[in-house]
Amino acid sequence: MEPFELSLTAAAAEIGARRLSPVELVDSVLARIEATEPVLGAFACVTADAAREDARRAEQEIAAGRYLGPLHGIPLGVKDLYDTAGVPATSSSRVREGHVPDTDAVAVARLRAAGMVVVGKTHTHEFAYGAITPTTRNPWDPGRIPGGSSGGSGAAVAAGSCMVGLGSDTAGSIRIPAALCGTVGLKPTYGRVSRRGVASLSWSLDHVGPLTRDVVDCALVLDAVAGFDRLDPATVDVPVPDSTAGLDRGIAGLRVGVPVNYFGDHVSEDVAAAVRAAVGVLEEQGAQVREVTIPYADQVLAAEWGILLPEASAYHQEALRSRGDLYTDDVRLFLEVGELVLATDYIKALRVRTLMQQGWAAVFDDIDVLVTPGMPVAAPEVGATHVTWPDGTTEDVTTALVRLTSPGNLTGLPVLAVPVGSDGAGLPLGMQVTGRPFDEATVLRVGAAYQAASTTVGRIAPVV
Amino acid sequence: MEPFELSLTAAAAEIGARRLSPVELVDSVLARIEATEPVLGAFACVTADAAREDARRAEQEIAAGRYLGPLHGIPLGVKDLYDTAGVPATSSSRVREGHVPDTDAVAVARLRAAGMVVVGKTHTHEFAYGAITPTTRNPWDPGRIPGGSSGGSGAAVAAGSCMVGLGSDTAGSIRIPAALCGTVGLKPTYGRVSRRGVASLSWSLDHVGPLTRDVVDCALVLDAVAGFDRLDPATVDVPVPDSTAGLDRGIAGLRVGVPVNYFGDHVSEDVAAAVRAAVGVLEEQGAQVREVTIPYADQVLAAEWGILLPEASAYHQEALRSRGDLYTDDVRLFLEVGELVLATDYIKALRVRTLMQQGWAAVFDDIDVLVTPGMPVAAPEVGATHVTWPDGTTEDVTTALVRLTSPGNLTGLPVLAVPVGSDGAGLPLGMQVTGRPFDEATVLRVGAAYQAASTTVGRIAPVV
Repeated sequence: MEPFELSLTAAAAEIGARRLSPVELVDSVLARIEATEPVLGAFACVTADAAREDARRAEQEIAAGRYLGPLHGIPLGVKDLYDTAGVPATSSSRVREGHVPDTDAVAVARLRAAGMVVVGKTHTHEFAYGAITPTTRNPWDPGRIPGGSSGGSGAAVAAGSCMVGLGSDTAGSIRIPAALCGTVGLKPTYGRVSRRGVASLSWSLDHVGPLTRDVVDCALVLDAVAGFDRLDPATVDVPVPDSTAGLDRGIAGLRVGVPVNYFGDHVSEDVAAAVRAAVGVLEEQGAQVREVTIPYADQVLAAEWGILLPEASAYHQEALRSRGDLYTDDVRLFLEVGELVLATDYIKALRVRTLMQQGWAAVFDDIDVLVTPGMPVAAPEVGATHVTWPDGTTEDVTTALVRLTSPGNLTGLPVLAVPVGSDGAGLPLGMQVTGRPFDEATVLRVGAAYQAASTTVGRIAPVV
Repeated sequence: MEPFELSLTAAAAEIGARRLSPVELVDSVLARIEATEPVLGAFACVTADAAREDARRAEQEIAAGRYLGPLHGIPLGVKDLYDTAGVPATSSSRVREGHVPDTDAVAVARLRAAGMVVVGKTHTHEFAYGAITPTTRNPWDPGRIPGGSSGGSGAAVAAGSCMVGLGSDTAGSIRIPAALCGTVGLKPTYGRVSRRGVASLSWSLDHVGPLTRDVVDCALVLDAVAGFDRLDPATVDVPVPDSTAGLDRGIAGLRVGVPVNYFGDHVSEDVAAAVRAAVGVLEEQGAQVREVTIPYADQVLAAEWGILLPEASAYHQEALRSRGDLYTDDVRLFLEVGELVLATDYIKALRVRTLMQQGWAAVFDDIDVLVTPGMPVAAPEVGATHVTWPDGTTEDVTTALVRLTSPGNLTGLPVLAVPVGSDGAGLPLGMQVTGRPFDEATVLRVGAAYQAASTTVGRIAPVV
């Protein structure tokens, strides 16, 4: 087994015991990047020299007895939306070509402080404004998209080209590539992790968080990045618990909600069956399954787009005026449409969101977590514009990909994406576990309970 | 001395000792209403029968030993913007003519639970959308406006037509009539008091709070209405301290900020002198005065209107479409203008507000409270459209009245309006004391310290 194939926890155990050097691990990962990038195109840039230097320093620190913990020496891929000191941060856009920030985004700085080694910047759909990531291919089938916008992180983590990828999620951009590439992904509670230094798409819907190979890794990274930041006014000054502490406590008696509406509409039979089976696994471990009704389901997409479109256009307005021709056509169109939205319509979308948040809070009076499909389909083919459903209707790919994840952005609740096996073609399928505000610990515990009974969480894609 | 002339605290002491019956007090106040209303026009409706009945019940409860505390049996005027069970709530608008709610607004319910007796609904500028209150006259000079939008509450409290008036404040609507009528008024921290059951003007700027004759009364009412309400998602679940506890503790060592910009521009010499004198009073009591610079001062009015206009239009959109001709011309014009605002412009105003909040938070690193003029002028004459300044410039009356209060709405910080004497014509002048989020206790303590050295706080207007 090559070092890049180890789980983060296994690699950390080897590093902590000085049986594996961060230098060996990073070299193995860099070699994996070199082998897979011609097919994947997951990275906007690879920072091999800096990574080797950081790995050497980590090796020396550990040799000198200054082991920082399980993230020390672990290779990290950072979505190109994040600022990285001295390394280009282009948001995969010509608009930001040549932009080299002076400082790291808060999440990057915190992970570096925990000893992680940045191996490169991963591709995003331009400015995170899309669910495809056209630069990048799916590691399970290069004829398929990885999803987006954190498609580079999803593809790289699944392929073994890094052990953790940072992502961001405004309408599902962590959970979409996680589901389509077969990784774990966490959209933390709105306000749990600082977004300072990450290019904004729609600040009232934006979340940052990790994509990882398994649930334990995800908890480790969350604990390192979580916490109040006075300069991200959305962050909330609440205690950050140790998410890894109760991961193996089991889920006996936990009330698992399963929706009777919305999340079952236009979902492939493969996905539905895989999620049903996953719920069965949770039930076998003592969870109590309860049916729940999703409130304001008909308003999800109107609210999501009614907020996202104008917020994105406000953020990009100056660049659109001065350098509009540098955007790709699809993103420029979105930005132009967003400029036409009236304030009163945006405000109505905000009001619907508030009602939705109240409605979901009431749903969680009766359950501890909600389990739903992650994506309605496995990864679509590259170039596909529509999904065709058995009832003869079609749906554009972007709508299909954001439809089941947007409620998490509107409600701000923490959502964990967990792989639940594959379809007949070997493509990964995913589920989402949603919890109460700031209760990432419980969604991670449910993910860990499922993972313990699963053979497919943590797999590395062959990149065929 | 008639009972209506007593301070709330004095009346409460008499009632608690059973030397004064709530029935006598309410009768005295109702007589005062009858005597002053032909001049003032402060009330949209007077609920004399219900008030007498409530007073009788209070009398019986107290006789039976069930004294609820200092608000028991105290006459309350409720701004017509508030829902009141079984009593019309028209927001002083023909659009809401005949609207009789089934339930009380939360603040009304809480005050009734504390034993207060509602004597009537006080006039608001239509839907709180204006600073004039054209229905109502100033009790110090009926040729002058009372200010608005809580002009009825301001006039009634100052005249002795009720002991406490409920108001709401979106751009200054509690503090403007408080200053122009010579009462105390508190705009609590955004999120401190539930607004459920109060017609919205601009929900992200709307605050509800009391107008009272003195600072102690204000603290008593605040404590009764403050607290989290799950159904007003803006409210914050923080402890509600006993604001009356430390009121007489003095202000030795307290750091009092005095602004070097914005709040001194285009302020009458009478007001400036009165506020300087008030600051001197605080200094004599041991406060340390420090000069501070107000951040983002040039953006205050743009942000205030950029948020208020479209939020109000979103709230009124359906009524404007179906019954637009029932609005007064000035309010209909505002509502129509608000419909033209683009979402991107609204969003830019929200972003400026966030920067402003951060900037003000930094100012409060060095001070405990900020003391500023309340209004730039004393009450304008009825029908005046402009204020003329010594430098020859003119300013429309509404802008003059909201200019110094809007920062409190944008920042959400608690602001206490306190009378600081009168001008040569006998018209009241006011100051504002602004504090840190949820630190109403300190602004009230400063107000109480000033009041202890003042002879004009708590005066009743003769209604000449």
